[in-house]
Amino acid sequence: MADTPFDYSALFRADLPAPAARWNGFPKYNFVGGHNDAGCVPVEGLVAAATSVLRREGRTLSTYGLESGPLGYRPLREFVARKLAKDAGITCSADDILITSGSLQGLDLVNDVLVAPGDTVIIEQSTYGGAITRLARCGANIVGVPVDHDGLSATALEAALVDLAARGIRPKYIYTIPTVQNPTATVMSTARRQAILALSERFGVPIFEDECYADLVWSGERPQAMRGMSPDGRVIHIGSFSKSIAPALRVGWLVADWTVMSRILAIKNDAGSGALEQMVLAEFCEAAFDDHVRHLRGVLRGKVEALMTALRAQFGDAAEFDDPVGGIFLWVTLPEAVDTSRLAQAALQAGVAINPGAEWMTDAVPGRRRLRLCFAHPSPEVIGEGVARLAEVCHREFGVPVREANPHR
Amino acid sequence: MADTPFDYSALFRADLPAPAARWNGFPKYNFVGGHNDAGCVPVEGLVAAATSVLRREGRTLSTYGLESGPLGYRPLREFVARKLAKDAGITCSADDILITSGSLQGLDLVNDVLVAPGDTVIIEQSTYGGAITRLARCGANIVGVPVDHDGLSATALEAALVDLAARGIRPKYIYTIPTVQNPTATVMSTARRQAILALSERFGVPIFEDECYADLVWSGERPQAMRGMSPDGRVIHIGSFSKSIAPALRVGWLVADWTVMSRILAIKNDAGSGALEQMVLAEFCEAAFDDHVRHLRGVLRGKVEALMTALRAQFGDAAEFDDPVGGIFLWVTLPEAVDTSRLAQAALQAGVAINPGAEWMTDAVPGRRRLRLCFAHPSPEVIGEGVARLAEVCHREFGVPVREANPHR
Repeated sequence: MADTPFDYSALFRADLPAPAARWNGFPKYNFVGGHNDAGCVPVEGLVAAATSVLRREGRTLSTYGLESGPLGYRPLREFVARKLAKDAGITCSADDILITSGSLQGLDLVNDVLVAPGDTVIIEQSTYGGAITRLARCGANIVGVPVDHDGLSATALEAALVDLAARGIRPKYIYTIPTVQNPTATVMSTARRQAILALSERFGVPIFEDECYADLVWSGERPQAMRGMSPDGRVIHIGSFSKSIAPALRVGWLVADWTVMSRILAIKNDAGSGALEQMVLAEFCEAAFDDHVRHLRGVLRGKVEALMTALRAQFGDAAEFDDPVGGIFLWVTLPEAVDTSRLAQAALQAGVAINPGAEWMTDAVPGRRRLRLCFAHPSPEVIGEGVARLAEVCHREFGVPVREANPHR
Repeated sequence: MADTPFDYSALFRADLPAPAARWNGFPKYNFVGGHNDAGCVPVEGLVAAATSVLRREGRTLSTYGLESGPLGYRPLREFVARKLAKDAGITCSADDILITSGSLQGLDLVNDVLVAPGDTVIIEQSTYGGAITRLARCGANIVGVPVDHDGLSATALEAALVDLAARGIRPKYIYTIPTVQNPTATVMSTARRQAILALSERFGVPIFEDECYADLVWSGERPQAMRGMSPDGRVIHIGSFSKSIAPALRVGWLVADWTVMSRILAIKNDAGSGALEQMVLAEFCEAAFDDHVRHLRGVLRGKVEALMTALRAQFGDAAEFDDPVGGIFLWVTLPEAVDTSRLAQAALQAGVAINPGAEWMTDAVPGRRRLRLCFAHPSPEVIGEGVARLAEVCHREFGVPVREANPHR
């Protein structure tokens, strides 16, 4: 048989994205991705949890889904139910909760049961880039609605719903990240949540609520989740342990009524999420979740202060941002002269990775001078150096920030 | 807001399968699913592995993909590369291996990059039911090719390829489970593998080789994988730790050239498989994989003997089967009078779960009197009781097996 590589070119689906590039390690100054603080990983707590849960129940690893069925490890679902009641004002039982492989699987499952090619969905105009690319791959018609300091704009949402209704279009859902919005880091007020729920009711459009950052509000206090404010099942809620414990664990959850859950389970054919992660998390969280997250919030708050200090020092007034109330990212606006997509490419050459605004918005134009900086993983020192290097690149490429005689001032 | 449940009926995709039923626990006599022997789960080995790997590298859980990139935890990929060289005659490096969430994700990823609605794929006429349902959901045109005691029939495959070529159809791949075929438990000979590779070359159709049961050949010896016999990348190979360590862990692998891998990585948007399982498996397998699997094979061999003994005692000549050379299932043929789909329903009422042949074949008709019995999870005692109960139900419904005066003989 020949050594000439087999030619797959005529066999690949025609609608695939460009091939991936080889991975060459993380850049030195890594301000992208939902990575978290390495020192906050509760290593000894996880060791203790793994040891006790494996000794007690390890033999159940011999069955798919442990002894808990397709919704996931029952003790973890019970922990999530108690946590959501306490932290988010959601009344639900373990039977209303599906453990997912990160909240990303929650996005996929909801899209898979609701969104066919040509369907319309409403999302926040600035939102998680992965939500946009997923919907694009579904062939969805994406309607982006502006956000303000209070989150998704109810006025703009109403206008969009009126416009769609006039054209006979009923969107499949309204996707929102109400608590620590990604990327703006705002927290939607209760009044705004009520207004959006009222619009959901008036137009018959369900709400897809993504609260994967909600544990990271500095104050530890968050408004009631929309899922908790609406008893009729119109809100599908997802959350995650990725931001509160560790992203590499890939464990999230989805809360929905059985009408939706039974449809999701019918297409969920992965034989469950990784059981060891579920078992260890349930054991760890029962003992230590609240204390762990309280400590983590303090560390993250220190890192965002380092980031804001560095931005003020390096960019001065050229970088506009709000002091975030929580989370792992800062949404920054630069002067008109800057194109952050080009900046991102140039910065990467200098070892600095950033998310250009265009990738985090449904409409690339208003994202042109915005960027997202994730601060949870790099140390305060690396944050300072990385921002200095970013400012150098930005000055070289766009003349921003304006430099005095000594460019390293 | 009203308490009337929100009405999703007009919002669900039109092409969804029927909603799932609530899970009510495993049946008492559970002969379905790839569950494994509970006593063989290497609990203390996993505890030791979790402790050492978490203490050494636990902080890397703070980053997506650990420090290993999108292909998965590098030490696990390195273990798999060494294992495949030793056990399967596959020469590859860690960079050719993708860690997947079970081999099921491997099925999905390969389908996602190759199979568009209307495309044709060739699969074994009797095969893993989940492979059939996945392809049906992709909208694939499924061509089932018969298997014999040597696995996929080369003669029948050639006829199918000739027929398709005459109609201008180039199938996207030939899917085969060569080693411990599911459900027939045959092992394809090297000569047959060569014949199938020659057909692959003649017709320009890649081979999708699923060796997820290959570690469970009783003798510990398996033929060289087709991936190892063909240097040009025409074979995409998948495997799994589900059968060798524990199914609930959800860790498998996929071996492919970069042409294919780069396409897969471009659409793989799950942010990686669970890291803790990858880390613990790498640590455990490095120390103890071979010894563990040798012990497991002995236990499974004992269980299939219990199953065959029970079938002979309860069904006599009415149940035909071959003594399998490995694996976790037995493929049984009953007399013409029996419809195993109906038998499966009646048996479930009596607490006995079986896979009817129709669900494990591309063509329901030849599957009508066949069934698959998984034997790895139940104890020998439960196997005996379950088969006795199955025989009772089968006798009641179909008069098979024929009973003498004392039905409990």
